[in-house]
Amino acid sequence: MNQEMNPVSDALARYKAAAYSKDVDAFVALYADDVHVFDMWNQWELRGIDAWRGMAQGWFGSLGTERVVIDFSDVVATVGADIALGHATVTYTAVSAEGKDLRSLDNRMTLALRRAGATWKIFHEHTSGPIEHKSLKGMIKRSA
Amino acid sequence: MNQEMNPVSDALARYKAAAYSKDVDAFVALYADDVHVFDMWNQWELRGIDAWRGMAQGWFGSLGTERVVIDFSDVVATVGADIALGHATVTYTAVSAEGKDLRSLDNRMTLALRRAGATWKIFHEHTSGPIEHKSLKGMIKRSA
Repeated sequence: MNQEMNPVSDALARYKAAAYSKDVDAFVALYADDVHVFDMWNQWELRGIDAWRGMAQGWFGSLGTERVVIDFSDVVATVGADIALGHATVTYTAVSAEGKDLRSLDNRMTLALRRAGATWKIFHEHTSGPIEHKSLKGMIKRSA
Repeated sequence: MNQEMNPVSDALARYKAAAYSKDVDAFVALYADDVHVFDMWNQWELRGIDAWRGMAQGWFGSLGTERVVIDFSDVVATVGADIALGHATVTYTAVSAEGKDLRSLDNRMTLALRRAGATWKIFHEHTSGPIEHKSLKGMIKRSA
């Protein structure tokens, strides 16, 4: 693994910066056109860059004067010749315009990237939190 | 991608067969010793083959006379030189000793495999279902 050009840590840093600046274009630029996401929220899956751009617009647009500060912990990067895999715990903290932490949530994140010429693009992302086995409340069924 | 030696479809077929026959050793043989799992249920993460073997023993041991029939749909396999990535929807159906379907649940699954000599091993697995954004019921916080 080449630490100087780690596509996983590069993608995580760009993800964090794009979210903090609510920059939809910078966020979307991280992903392949055919990206397929298993996102933590609401839907079984999101397919394609247009759907994913819509998610980012909705997310950043909902923040008002707040910002999102993202921290990654327990990052594991496995970089192959043409595919790279990263997984980590992600902490999303909403911060007020005055810089006060408002609320925070941890997700588990898996990112899969493939080499695209001189750069790497995320083609699959999976975020979630675990569920209590005895309670299926809040779970969303796959639509038929 | 070499369809004749697709490590993703091979792993999924072996996963299905091991679960149906409740064969802990065959199941565990799919995974690398340092496997790191973000599982759908109960815990934030499982690290290492011993923890994962314990999960399989608990799962298969809890089934009594039932069997689990697993079906994969919407399988996407991305096979690189030394890392392979698979993602799919997995349907787990509990079947009685008389062959009657008892209950069924869909998961979203991501598998990351790395080449280990002549074979491939799963080093990261992530399974989940999406959560309603307005309800965090049933979600488990990461332990500090």
